[in-house]
Amino acid sequence: MVDVIAFDGDDTLWHNETLFSVTQEKFRALLRPYVEESDIDASLLATEKRNLALFGYGIKGFTLSMIETAIEVSGGRVTATEVQTLIEHGKAMLDHPVELLDGVEEIIDSLGQVYRIMLITKGDLFDQESKIARSGLAERFWKIEIVSEKDPDTYRRILATNDIAADDFLMVGNSVRSDILPVLEIGGRAVHIPYHVTWEHEQADPLSAEGRAYRTLDSIVELPLILRDLVDAI
Amino acid sequence: MVDVIAFDGDDTLWHNETLFSVTQEKFRALLRPYVEESDIDASLLATEKRNLALFGYGIKGFTLSMIETAIEVSGGRVTATEVQTLIEHGKAMLDHPVELLDGVEEIIDSLGQVYRIMLITKGDLFDQESKIARSGLAERFWKIEIVSEKDPDTYRRILATNDIAADDFLMVGNSVRSDILPVLEIGGRAVHIPYHVTWEHEQADPLSAEGRAYRTLDSIVELPLILRDLVDAI
Repeated sequence: MVDVIAFDGDDTLWHNETLFSVTQEKFRALLRPYVEESDIDASLLATEKRNLALFGYGIKGFTLSMIETAIEVSGGRVTATEVQTLIEHGKAMLDHPVELLDGVEEIIDSLGQVYRIMLITKGDLFDQESKIARSGLAERFWKIEIVSEKDPDTYRRILATNDIAADDFLMVGNSVRSDILPVLEIGGRAVHIPYHVTWEHEQADPLSAEGRAYRTLDSIVELPLILRDLVDAI
Repeated sequence: MVDVIAFDGDDTLWHNETLFSVTQEKFRALLRPYVEESDIDASLLATEKRNLALFGYGIKGFTLSMIETAIEVSGGRVTATEVQTLIEHGKAMLDHPVELLDGVEEIIDSLGQVYRIMLITKGDLFDQESKIARSGLAERFWKIEIVSEKDPDTYRRILATNDIAADDFLMVGNSVRSDILPVLEIGGRAVHIPYHVTWEHEQADPLSAEGRAYRTLDSIVELPLILRDLVDAI
């Protein structure tokens, strides 16, 4: 029987990737005078991937990668004023209001009557804490875990620290790579709720889910209605 | 009786502020063509303080603040190549080997025979985890806590989560503001081991320690020798 339901934060409880998309559109506009637009996204993604081992996930690293990409694709012609504009874009993201997805508050409240509810979110500690505070949801979670990477070892450690059996644990999130596969690997259960935008780095290889069962829902509001069936089925 | 000894990381177990100092010297050199050298440090500190609420602590935020300061003090004349150099300085800091202070490894080992040893470190989650891994000390800690701010509430939460009575808790660190005063405030004990460089933001108002007792040591190697006396005395 499931006893603990853990939610991912970004793009599961609140919008996040749309904020990156909007900023990336501004980034493309800024670089249009310098470079073919079709090359910009690929260059930014390449920079982000190259920097991931040093920067980790988060807006500050993304901002540094935008600046680095702008310098690179403009052949060093990007101006100081434009660089400052990119820093302002990063600050605007950090300061952006946290917008909950539809139904989140009600679902957390109603599930909280029956289950222990956790938040397991990945990224920059300071930024995630700030978002959790601004979400207004902080008090509703039994436990909050902010992690730098969501791999099987991370989930194993969280379950051990909080005395949770894998069999009692259900993870709900938008990323197959971070929220679903590693949880299935350690013997937990998982529900996938796709977000309409997914960062390319979070795309899982479809083959990697082969042979493992998880359910996919269209929206978090479906979760309580089918929770009993769903746990029996997966 | 003290049962748990918690150590700060940066500038208590391993060198950190010297890395910032060395980078800041390179930053001054880069900006020398544009501005009176005496203004550079003050401008950078002002930028860092202004950005602290959005960026938190850490190297990525420091790098963004260096870039912003460079644009500001050069009146927008700093070049894209120079901005890239600042990003490279930030990356070099993130990638820099972790150098333990003298005697740290031995002290942690010997105290670990008698006490439960914790690490309570502040800053960027990803960067701190990376430093802890590279320090070679990770396995020696009973618990590791990475926090975004060290205030009384943070220490209260850590003690509650880990079932530690304030009376049994001794914190050891180089920052009066972050490692000493908040611990005394919640009824714990604290030992101050100054580092030879302290970031100006971490300087505590001397008045704020008034009436509260804590011991100051020259080096971590003095800790085991005087631990019994010290706990009686403070």
